[in-house]
Amino acid sequence: MTALPSWRDTPTRTAILDLVAAVTTGPGALPVEERVAVFDNDGTLWAEKPMPVQLHFLVEQWARAAATDPDLARTEPYRAASTGDLAWLGAAIDKHYAGDDSDLRPLIAAVVAVQEGRSVGEYADEVRAFLDTAVHPTLGLPYRYATYQPLRELLDLLRERGFTTYITSGGDRDFMRPFTEDYYGVAPEQVVGSSLGLAFDEEKADVVYGSTFSFLDDGPEKPVRIWSRTGRRPVLAVGNSNGDVPMLAYAAGHPQGLALLVRHDDPDRGDPPYDAGAEQALATATAQGWTVVSVRDDWAQVFPVPPEGSAHETRPGHRRAPRPDPRPAHP
Amino acid sequence: MTALPSWRDTPTRTAILDLVAAVTTGPGALPVEERVAVFDNDGTLWAEKPMPVQLHFLVEQWARAAATDPDLARTEPYRAASTGDLAWLGAAIDKHYAGDDSDLRPLIAAVVAVQEGRSVGEYADEVRAFLDTAVHPTLGLPYRYATYQPLRELLDLLRERGFTTYITSGGDRDFMRPFTEDYYGVAPEQVVGSSLGLAFDEEKADVVYGSTFSFLDDGPEKPVRIWSRTGRRPVLAVGNSNGDVPMLAYAAGHPQGLALLVRHDDPDRGDPPYDAGAEQALATATAQGWTVVSVRDDWAQVFPVPPEGSAHETRPGHRRAPRPDPRPAHP
Repeated sequence: MTALPSWRDTPTRTAILDLVAAVTTGPGALPVEERVAVFDNDGTLWAEKPMPVQLHFLVEQWARAAATDPDLARTEPYRAASTGDLAWLGAAIDKHYAGDDSDLRPLIAAVVAVQEGRSVGEYADEVRAFLDTAVHPTLGLPYRYATYQPLRELLDLLRERGFTTYITSGGDRDFMRPFTEDYYGVAPEQVVGSSLGLAFDEEKADVVYGSTFSFLDDGPEKPVRIWSRTGRRPVLAVGNSNGDVPMLAYAAGHPQGLALLVRHDDPDRGDPPYDAGAEQALATATAQGWTVVSVRDDWAQVFPVPPEGSAHETRPGHRRAPRPDPRPAHP
Repeated sequence: MTALPSWRDTPTRTAILDLVAAVTTGPGALPVEERVAVFDNDGTLWAEKPMPVQLHFLVEQWARAAATDPDLARTEPYRAASTGDLAWLGAAIDKHYAGDDSDLRPLIAAVVAVQEGRSVGEYADEVRAFLDTAVHPTLGLPYRYATYQPLRELLDLLRERGFTTYITSGGDRDFMRPFTEDYYGVAPEQVVGSSLGLAFDEEKADVVYGSTFSFLDDGPEKPVRIWSRTGRRPVLAVGNSNGDVPMLAYAAGHPQGLALLVRHDDPDRGDPPYDAGAEQALATATAQGWTVVSVRDDWAQVFPVPPEGSAHETRPGHRRAPRPDPRPAHP
């Protein structure tokens, strides 16, 4: 079977296949254990618009908490979640980037409150239950179909060639672990992300969430966490936003390194175009000669096709037959 | 070949082989990815007396720094290191356990100062250079021969049966990574330990040590770090001291879990007996029915034998021919 079938035959695909060949064959081949590839998750392995999946999960949890506590329902972000006023959430994050954390603090406190006192296993069960029924707001499909098929193929190809593939996301590590094996073939020990504060509960002999937020795995924290987890410098990094720049630079600093930046620029196939939050990354990619992956130009298919006859194949928003495209698909 | 040849045929060895059989065969077999075993390092995988190996490394670094800076040479712990007054170091740690951190603070500051500004690769090179020449103070042999042969055999057996083996030490993670593959077959990504504060240096596009100590991986932090790294509860944990109790309890909480506590109780074969620092662990092992590994009774051999004809085989302190022992070696 042709490698990377959902990729068009463009210089981007060639750059990826060249890297894989250089690292796995010939005089520059790396030992298997040094073939490390890291992938951002939100906006890289699956869609992050109109809102990150973890935020969808949190909004449901906050709305549920507000439903049984009128006092809570009057405070943010519980009010926003229970009334569907998601603009408040976006504004809180925008204010943070403008240097005003007055709304971010209650937001983080509410993120922590959702899991406080729960065990790591209880949280994993809640995430699985959410993903069993949640539907992507615009695609109208379960989130497993909001993953990017070309990058799933790249993950598979790399592992076939002896790479270890890690997810290195700003999202919560323990939110991702329950589904990454199933969706991406990435095991829990290969998921790097942000972390809520944890404690060991002697009574339960189990690991539980405490009352703190531990760290945000974004920006310069990403290469630090990659090193902390793996003890290696990756030879391939894939990201899509400003928060991925240091991680991409870390991989680009490998003698054979390749940095890939996914650009959402396709107006037609259910993945909305946006550069907001990626301005610095795009400028750095140009300056450093990193490879930009254009959703529009490099991908023959964007999302996986649900199985024939499944309840999902006719959901609105999912395109079984994308409109004809004049660019050649990879043969 | 018989499994675990350096173990005597005791109930301890039987308990270990029973666990391996239960986890890998029959109705209770775990999927390969859930076969997780965690090992403390100092005092468990290698000797920690008369001083932890990392402390030996630090003393050399501090003495070197003091040699070129008279002001530094007058302050602790540099004075202690350069004059060989190691009692000061032991007293600083004893004071800490008595609630007085007045000497611990300069000690930690000096630990941080050794690596500040260096890259992770530079530190790894220094550790390798140290281990190439350093000699265990009483065994008179390189530290690779101060490892416990029975536990090296256990690591090998577990990996042969599909386990993933992790080191979970209170020692510095990045001090261990340069040698764990060579000494124990444990890859860098499977080394969990304490951490100096790290930062991403944009200029170098590399991960470097900052001016902080990040966290001590000991006591209740051990299960937290095991979860953070692996996303699994281990089915086997091996430790030797009070700081290992929560990690041992975490494994014991697994439905098939086995907790092993190594007790240093052999007066004759170069591994000095001590229970100091293990009092709570021994009491908990008795109360909880954990398995205590007696160096004296359960191990037919303690340290690996240097290769015939090597420069090390005749070093003082190393016993090629231990005194005759009336207990039967495992056949």
